[in-house]
Amino acid sequence: MCEQIRTVNVGVIGLGTVGGGTVRLLNKQREEYKRAYGMDARVARGCSLDEAAAAELGLTGDAFTSDWHDITSDPSIDIVVELIGGEHPATEIMLDAFAHGKHVVSANKALLGKEMERLAGEARAAGVQLRCEASCGGGIPIIDALERGLAGNDMLALAGIVNGTTNYILSRMDAEGLGFDEVLADAQRLGYAEADPTADVDGLDAAAKIAILSSIAFHTRVMSADVDCQGIRAVSAGDISWAREHDMAVKLLAVGRKTNGRVEARVQPAMIPAGHMLASVNGAMNAVFAVGDAVGETMFYGAGAGSFPTASAVVSDVLAIARPLSQGRVVEEEAEPYAKTLPVATTEDMTGRYYVRVPLHGDADADVQSAVRAAFEEHGVGIESIQQGSAGDLVILTEQTSPSKLRLLCDVLRGREMAASAVSIIRIEDTAAWSEGAEKN
Amino acid sequence: MCEQIRTVNVGVIGLGTVGGGTVRLLNKQREEYKRAYGMDARVARGCSLDEAAAAELGLTGDAFTSDWHDITSDPSIDIVVELIGGEHPATEIMLDAFAHGKHVVSANKALLGKEMERLAGEARAAGVQLRCEASCGGGIPIIDALERGLAGNDMLALAGIVNGTTNYILSRMDAEGLGFDEVLADAQRLGYAEADPTADVDGLDAAAKIAILSSIAFHTRVMSADVDCQGIRAVSAGDISWAREHDMAVKLLAVGRKTNGRVEARVQPAMIPAGHMLASVNGAMNAVFAVGDAVGETMFYGAGAGSFPTASAVVSDVLAIARPLSQGRVVEEEAEPYAKTLPVATTEDMTGRYYVRVPLHGDADADVQSAVRAAFEEHGVGIESIQQGSAGDLVILTEQTSPSKLRLLCDVLRGREMAASAVSIIRIEDTAAWSEGAEKN
Repeated sequence: MCEQIRTVNVGVIGLGTVGGGTVRLLNKQREEYKRAYGMDARVARGCSLDEAAAAELGLTGDAFTSDWHDITSDPSIDIVVELIGGEHPATEIMLDAFAHGKHVVSANKALLGKEMERLAGEARAAGVQLRCEASCGGGIPIIDALERGLAGNDMLALAGIVNGTTNYILSRMDAEGLGFDEVLADAQRLGYAEADPTADVDGLDAAAKIAILSSIAFHTRVMSADVDCQGIRAVSAGDISWAREHDMAVKLLAVGRKTNGRVEARVQPAMIPAGHMLASVNGAMNAVFAVGDAVGETMFYGAGAGSFPTASAVVSDVLAIARPLSQGRVVEEEAEPYAKTLPVATTEDMTGRYYVRVPLHGDADADVQSAVRAAFEEHGVGIESIQQGSAGDLVILTEQTSPSKLRLLCDVLRGREMAASAVSIIRIEDTAAWSEGAEKN
Repeated sequence: MCEQIRTVNVGVIGLGTVGGGTVRLLNKQREEYKRAYGMDARVARGCSLDEAAAAELGLTGDAFTSDWHDITSDPSIDIVVELIGGEHPATEIMLDAFAHGKHVVSANKALLGKEMERLAGEARAAGVQLRCEASCGGGIPIIDALERGLAGNDMLALAGIVNGTTNYILSRMDAEGLGFDEVLADAQRLGYAEADPTADVDGLDAAAKIAILSSIAFHTRVMSADVDCQGIRAVSAGDISWAREHDMAVKLLAVGRKTNGRVEARVQPAMIPAGHMLASVNGAMNAVFAVGDAVGETMFYGAGAGSFPTASAVVSDVLAIARPLSQGRVVEEEAEPYAKTLPVATTEDMTGRYYVRVPLHGDADADVQSAVRAAFEEHGVGIESIQQGSAGDLVILTEQTSPSKLRLLCDVLRGREMAASAVSIIRIEDTAAWSEGAEKN
């Protein structure tokens, strides 16, 4: 099978953590890909602002450039790997690569969460592919699973732990009984959290990922801005121990569901049963729970970040393009991007039961309790139970309500100085509901 | 995108549990596949010996036949789905389909575990595909993951819970403290185990699956006969509770590993840490833990059997072929099958630490203990600890040893009438060793 293979040239733009891993992996396995897959792909050129980093990867002389145009316009390059992140110049890199008839592999969730439809449309128009396995769940081949392995299903729900930083923080808060700020500072020191942790701890990174995954799973366009997003800053050690006492675990869940002909997309801290598969996902690991009408419940688990795990996903995309190219076959063209065919559920629609912890100024005496009760009633939020939490806290379990009502209510509790500090709102996730609509076997 | 699509005709041979689910799923989702994927696939004909079953699926008149030749030789049919299982006439069906230029989708692990190399070679020679996602792990898209999503990795290890019947039995023994025979009888009554449970409880079904998965993961041919295979008949409720007391769970693990340039393939009851992801896989669910040099640890979880879950995998294969066919593109030809390039490890090589429970005729007094110790020493099996188990049992933890030595030793213990009944041998699986050779991040 080797007589006719041609070498496919790959240009890598961005030689940081993931870019470095990608170059190393492609170099390390090149001979094995030849032997096992009858194909050849080589890193022809790398682009970085850091020449020393490139040199460490063996990219020197002609194989190195600090100007990405040198790669997108190089006629010998077949596949452009964009790993610089951010919106600009990543957008320009992709568009220029398409204009030069080159396929693009990207891990850029922030950009694709916003602009997937447009960029995939441009790729399709140019007759090339835009692949993004590494944009969601690091090394977990979840996009391929949704596009191919589960393609026969009417997908009903996705529930992902797709941000390693927040899962690391929550896992350590759980294991060590520490507070959010304390663990965040330590995570920053250890390199598990960035200096500006906003994208992670406020759920924006998870929102982009669930937008991309929901678009693919539900065959409709979901954008980052469609995702109702709440982070973990208000989660306390007390919330986590309360959950543990009630045989639950607190996770930052990114949920996409198809309900009543609409797509519900949300990122929220949530309590799930301790026996649920997702509850076992600890540390910086990621997992996506995916429910289809035929397959029922599935889960895909792996490292959500890191140099080599993410490179594993990038390289799987490179190989999917390079294999047919190297063997002289036509590369499948980019499928028509999904347009917005299903409406997106509003925050008002995302009803569920919630755990609400109100930190008080003093004791949870009868007066305070009835004032809080009155505020809940005023805002139409039913109370299932009300109890004293740890010292000076009131723990309320609500009946079915929407996060928007609860957020408004929290502002009121703060405004009236009933809440001494941030009110913690954690969904009590109805994990059984994810399988509603599945076939019986 | 719909102007040029042509209808791809699918013939389904075998309309039992999985065949019925496959027909139902393809019919149910046909319009959505058109809309979302720009392709059309329809069930053109079904073959069964049970005409009533076919009629229930709407396959009557010309759409029904009881002679599979009518399907393999029908010029209008593009894809033959073989779901009758067994070796014959499944082999003849595949060969005749290839001879007529038709692609084949099959769930036949028993046949493929033996004959994958030959059959895939015949498919390749005929310029068609042989796909078998449903042969391993039911609805879990694990074959696609190994062939594509993790293709960039040097795969180091697979460890699967790939037989739902045995996992159901072990889970219930664990949850309810019942014995093997009791749970097996109940599982048979409930339809979770077959009247002849041999293929499941003796590990043969799992052996065929790990042979197929190891072949794909390690790019070398592994056959069912290469797998060292031990079932769960000797596992007792006492073994499981001993494991639980030591913070472990007992699972029937199908392991494939690449060690020292050889492939180790084995099916054994094993104790794994209770906190390991695989330990959470309960009931009839399946999971495959897969470790690659780049991606590190991953796990794929889902229903291992059942009508619709297995149909999900069958249909994913049908769609992978029907999509390009329907859109007028060339279907990728079957890759060259992997030949046996790596030697297979022998049972002597599969050393590990073992838990051995010897049921005694009477008390575990000092005389009995020293006789047992002597027998172990005689056979070169080092003892790490020896303790009294439940009444009349001796529980021995060994040092590193091979299953072959232990099996010989057990025969001796039975022959010398030291063991009152079957000796239980359970590997204490070194799950950390699965990741040996992975890249550091």
